[in-house]
Amino acid sequence: MKTKLCAVLTLLYLTCSIHARVIDVSEYGIRPGKDVTMEVNELIRSVKGQDDVTLYFPKGQYDFYPENAVETYRAVANHDNGLKRMAFPLFGHKNLTIEGNGSTFMFHGRLVPFTLEKADQIQLKDFTIDFIRPFHAELTVVERDEDTQTVIVETDPSQYPYRFRGGEVYFDRLGIEDALIGANIVFDPNTEAPIFGTSRYSMMRSSLKAEAVGAGRLKLTDGFENLPPVGSVVIVYGNHPISRLCHAIQVTNSKDILIENVTVHAAGGMGLIVERTENVTLDGMKVTSNENRLVATRADATHFIGCKGLISVKNCLFEHMLDDGINVHGAYVKVVRQVEENSFLCEISHFQQLGLTFAEAGDEVALLSRKTILPFFKTTVSEVRQLNEKRFLITLEDVPSELPDVPLSLENLTWNADLVMRNNSIRQNRARSVLVTTKGSVLIENNYFSSQMHGILIEGDNNFWYESGAVEDVVIRDNTFENIGFGNSRGYPLIAAPKLTYDQITGEGRYHRNIRFYDNTIRSFTGHVVHAFSVEDLVIAGNTIEPSREHPQAVIGWPVALEYCKNVELKNNTVVGFEEPLSVEISADSEAVQMMDNEGFK
Amino acid sequence: MKTKLCAVLTLLYLTCSIHARVIDVSEYGIRPGKDVTMEVNELIRSVKGQDDVTLYFPKGQYDFYPENAVETYRAVANHDNGLKRMAFPLFGHKNLTIEGNGSTFMFHGRLVPFTLEKADQIQLKDFTIDFIRPFHAELTVVERDEDTQTVIVETDPSQYPYRFRGGEVYFDRLGIEDALIGANIVFDPNTEAPIFGTSRYSMMRSSLKAEAVGAGRLKLTDGFENLPPVGSVVIVYGNHPISRLCHAIQVTNSKDILIENVTVHAAGGMGLIVERTENVTLDGMKVTSNENRLVATRADATHFIGCKGLISVKNCLFEHMLDDGINVHGAYVKVVRQVEENSFLCEISHFQQLGLTFAEAGDEVALLSRKTILPFFKTTVSEVRQLNEKRFLITLEDVPSELPDVPLSLENLTWNADLVMRNNSIRQNRARSVLVTTKGSVLIENNYFSSQMHGILIEGDNNFWYESGAVEDVVIRDNTFENIGFGNSRGYPLIAAPKLTYDQITGEGRYHRNIRFYDNTIRSFTGHVVHAFSVEDLVIAGNTIEPSREHPQAVIGWPVALEYCKNVELKNNTVVGFEEPLSVEISADSEAVQMMDNEGFK
Repeated sequence: MKTKLCAVLTLLYLTCSIHARVIDVSEYGIRPGKDVTMEVNELIRSVKGQDDVTLYFPKGQYDFYPENAVETYRAVANHDNGLKRMAFPLFGHKNLTIEGNGSTFMFHGRLVPFTLEKADQIQLKDFTIDFIRPFHAELTVVERDEDTQTVIVETDPSQYPYRFRGGEVYFDRLGIEDALIGANIVFDPNTEAPIFGTSRYSMMRSSLKAEAVGAGRLKLTDGFENLPPVGSVVIVYGNHPISRLCHAIQVTNSKDILIENVTVHAAGGMGLIVERTENVTLDGMKVTSNENRLVATRADATHFIGCKGLISVKNCLFEHMLDDGINVHGAYVKVVRQVEENSFLCEISHFQQLGLTFAEAGDEVALLSRKTILPFFKTTVSEVRQLNEKRFLITLEDVPSELPDVPLSLENLTWNADLVMRNNSIRQNRARSVLVTTKGSVLIENNYFSSQMHGILIEGDNNFWYESGAVEDVVIRDNTFENIGFGNSRGYPLIAAPKLTYDQITGEGRYHRNIRFYDNTIRSFTGHVVHAFSVEDLVIAGNTIEPSREHPQAVIGWPVALEYCKNVELKNNTVVGFEEPLSVEISADSEAVQMMDNEGFK
Repeated sequence: MKTKLCAVLTLLYLTCSIHARVIDVSEYGIRPGKDVTMEVNELIRSVKGQDDVTLYFPKGQYDFYPENAVETYRAVANHDNGLKRMAFPLFGHKNLTIEGNGSTFMFHGRLVPFTLEKADQIQLKDFTIDFIRPFHAELTVVERDEDTQTVIVETDPSQYPYRFRGGEVYFDRLGIEDALIGANIVFDPNTEAPIFGTSRYSMMRSSLKAEAVGAGRLKLTDGFENLPPVGSVVIVYGNHPISRLCHAIQVTNSKDILIENVTVHAAGGMGLIVERTENVTLDGMKVTSNENRLVATRADATHFIGCKGLISVKNCLFEHMLDDGINVHGAYVKVVRQVEENSFLCEISHFQQLGLTFAEAGDEVALLSRKTILPFFKTTVSEVRQLNEKRFLITLEDVPSELPDVPLSLENLTWNADLVMRNNSIRQNRARSVLVTTKGSVLIENNYFSSQMHGILIEGDNNFWYESGAVEDVVIRDNTFENIGFGNSRGYPLIAAPKLTYDQITGEGRYHRNIRFYDNTIRSFTGHVVHAFSVEDLVIAGNTIEPSREHPQAVIGWPVALEYCKNVELKNNTVVGFEEPLSVEISADSEAVQMMDNEGFK
C-alpha cells in the first residue's frame, strides 16, 4: 500500500515539474503480460526531439522479444560487433528519463536492453534487467572419480538447454549454439563466488570428453587439472566471437548520463559498456545474479573506454560476474606508417576494439614509442578519416622534425576521465574488482573489495588489450580489501605495473606516477599489500593488514614488492596477527624508498 | 602500337566532350604495381557530387588489398550480409563512368570490387575483375579405387591452400577458413563444364573422410555416390554463411546503369547482384574463369531482384559459374499478422533476402493467399517502417473488408522489370541458363544456352526461395538450346511451373500466362522441349528438335509435358533424327490444347 502511494506521489511530482512531460507508458499499450518491444521502440522513437520527457513504467514485469525489435549494426568495445536488436534505442535523444519504478524488464531472446548513442542528459532509474535464460550454463558436480578422472555434472535443461552434435555438447544460448568447450570456471555455491584456489580446477579443453548419462547429466572425462569437489558448480560460457554479443547497456558518444538503482541480473557481455562519453554517474547500480543462478553477467560489470569529465560510481554492488567489476581506460593504437608529413595510417590494436572512435579533430594526442610505451610528443588532431573498423588516417597539427626509429603508437590525452568511487562493494566475481588507467584524477574511498584476482589493478599495456594509459593522480583510501586473490593466492589489493612484452623495455622515466594508498584495511590470507613496478611518487601509509581466517594462510611472493620505482614512502602501516612479519622487497633499480614507523614488517 | 593510339584518341575524345571531365587516374597516384585501394577510395569520394566525370584507367593491372579499404555493413540479396570492404564504393554518385581501357582490377583479398548504392547514370566499361585466388578449390582426380571407395585428388596449394585441423580439411579462402565438406560438384576439364551425369558423382558429406597422402594430395574415402573418373576435377566451395560474402558487383536502389565489356573471372558470390534498380544494360559482359581455372564465380553470373524499367542483356558470355546465368524475379514476403485495419506486420521469407527493401510508399502491391499463391487484391503502399532485417510494418491504402482465413503474402507489382536478352551465350555452368519471373514483358531471342540443369526456368515459389512472381508476357524465339540438362538428363529447354509445397494447391486460375516459345533450335540428347504447369496461353511453335551426338540418347520423362494448362498451341514443330517420335503428355485437367502440323511427335 505504502509502495503504491509512493508511486502515485512520484508520478504526481514528476508531472508537476515545470516543462517536464511525464508519459505513463500504459497509455501507449505498454503493459505487463505481453511483448511490448514494438510499442517501446515506437514510443522511444516518437519522443526524440522532445525536451525533458519521462517515460514512466508502472511497476510490473515488462517482456521484450527480439522478433520485432529494431536493429542496427553496432561496434561495441570489448564485445563482438554485429547486428544488434534493441529494446531501448536512444539515438540522439536529449533530456530523457526512463523511470522504472521498480519494474523488471525481462528479455526473452537476444536483444540489447539499452543503447545510448549521441544521447545527452539521460537518466535510467529504478528497474531490473534480466534474461529468461542467461549466457552461461551452471553444471553442479554430483559425482567425482579420481581413478577414471571423471566427474558427473547435473544441470537443469530448462535453464541451460543443450544437445549433442558430432559427439560434442552445445548449449542453446537464446538462439546461438555455444560449445561446452569454451571459457569456464568453477564456482562454490556456499560462498557464491569462484571456488577458493580456482586455478587448480582449470578445465583442459583439448582432452575433455563429454557423454550423456541420463537426463540433465553429463559425464566429463579428462576435463580438469584437478577434479572439482562434489557440490561445486562448473560454469561454462562459450567462445569469441559469439560469446559477447549481447551486453545490457551501451553508452557511446554521449554526455551526462545517470544510471540509478538499476540492477542487471544477466547479459551476454558486460552489464555496462561506455565509450567516448562525458560525465557518467552510477548510483545504486547492481550487477548480481538472480536467486536461481550463481552467475550474473558473462563479462565485466562496468567498463569505460576513452571517456572524459567525471565518472562517479557510488553505492553500487557488483558481484557474481565472470569478469572485472569496473575498468576505466583508454586505447593505444598502432601507427602503421607515416603517409604524409603530418599524416599517419593507424590501426586499432585489439580485435574487440574494432570500430572504436579513437579520436576526433581537436583532441590532444601523444605519440609514443611502442618499445618503451612512454610518450615523447604531444599535439592536436586536425583530421581523422575512418577507413574501416580497423584502420584510420589521422592528421596531426605538428610532428617532430625527426621521428625515432621505433614502432609508434598514439594515445588520446583529451579523453581521460576523472573517477570517483565511493561506498561500493565488488566481490564474488572472477577477475579483479577495479582496473583503472586514466590520466584523470582518481579517488577510490570507502569501498569493499573481495575479488578472485587483484583488488585494484593499475596496469596499462601496449601489448594484448592495448589499454592506455599511465596514471598521474590516484588516491585509494579507507577501503576494505578482504581475501583478495582467492583464485591463486597471488593477487594484491593494489598492483600498479604496466604490462610489458618481452621486447618492450622500461624507458628513462617511470610509467605511472602519484599513487597514494592509505588508511585501508586489508583482511588477507596472503599478507599481500602492494606490488608496484615503474611507479614514481608512491605513498603506502596508514594501512592495517590483518589475517582473514576463511582460508589457510599462505604468503606466496612478496607482501610488498617495489620494482623500478622512485620516491616511495612506506609508513605507519600496521600488520597484526600474522605468524611472521611480512617482507618488503625492493629491486636494485628502485630509488628513494623511505620506510618508517611500520609495524609487523621485516 | 595501334592499341596505344586508340587509347590516346579515346582519352582525347572523352576530354573534348562538352561538360565532361576526364580524370586520368595516374595523376592521383593510381598506377599499376602497387596497392591503389586507398587512392581509388579517395578519388571516388572526391568526385561525388560532380557531374559527368570519367575516371580513366590507362591500361594495366591495378592491385587492390583489403587492409585500407573503406568498409560498411551491407545487406546483399542472395548473399551473406556483413561488413564489406570495398574498392569502388559509389554511394549517391551521378553520371560517373569508370573507363578501364582493358585494364585488370586484381583483388588480393576479401573486398567487394564494385558497390553502387543510390547511384544514377553509372557506366562501368572495359575492365576485368579477378581475384588472386578464387572462392572455391579445384581438386583433380588422379587415382580411383572402387574396392576401397577412395579417390586420390591433387591440387595446387599455392592456388588452393589448405590445412588439416581436428582431422578435417580447411581451405584458406582469402582469410576465411572454409571446410572441404561443403557444396561441391565435379567438372570435366575436356568440356570445361560440369561432368556429364553430374548428379551421379554427388559427394556424401556425412561419410567422407580425407587424409593427406603427400604434398597437394588428399585421399578421399567414402566420399562419392559413384567415384568420379580419373582426370575429372572435384570443385568444393564451402557453406553458408561464409560462402557468399564477396560478390563482384552490387547495384542497389540505383538507376540507369550500364556495364559494358566488363569481365568477371572470380567472386565469392555472384558476378552481379542488382536490387531495386531501374534500367540496367549489360553489353558484352563476361563471367568466365581465367585460363588457370575451370570455375569462375561461386554463385550466379547475374541476378536481379525487384527491379523495374528495362533490363537489357546483350552480347554477353556467362560460363563456368557454379550457379545460374541470370535470374530476374521479385520477392514474396509473409504477412505475420494484421496489426491495425490497414497495417500488417510482415517478414522477409528467405534468409538470404534479409535486409531487402520489399516496398516503399507509393508502390503497388498485391495480397496473395499463401495457399494458392494467387493474388486476390491490389492496392498501394502508404508507409513502410523497417523494424529489423527480417521484419517490417507496412500500411496499405485499402484492405478488403474481409480477409480470407489463410496465411497471406504480399508481392510488389510496381517493381517488375522488362527483360530483353539478345545474342548471349550461357553455358558450361552448374544449374540453369535463365530464370525469369517478372510481370514485365520478356523477350529472349538469338541466344545460345547449354546449361547443366534447365535452359529457361519460369518458376515462382512461395516456398523456399520465395521468388515472385507469375509471368504475363514472355517471348522466347530463335534461340539455340544445346545439350540442356546434361546433369541428370531431366532438364528442359523451357520449363514454366510454379513450385508448390505439399500443402499449397492450385487455385481457380493458372499461375503463369502468355508464354510464346517459337522458332528455337533444340539440339538434345533427351528430346526434351517444354514442361509447363499452371500456364494459360502458351504457344510452342516452329521449333526444331534435333539430336545432339555428344551424349547417349536417353529420353527420361516426357519431351512435352502439359499439366493444368489452358489455351495451348503446339504447332509447326519439327523433330528430326530421333530414333522414335517424341511424346506429348497432356494432363486431364488441362484445357483447350491444340496440336497441329507438328512433325516427329507421337
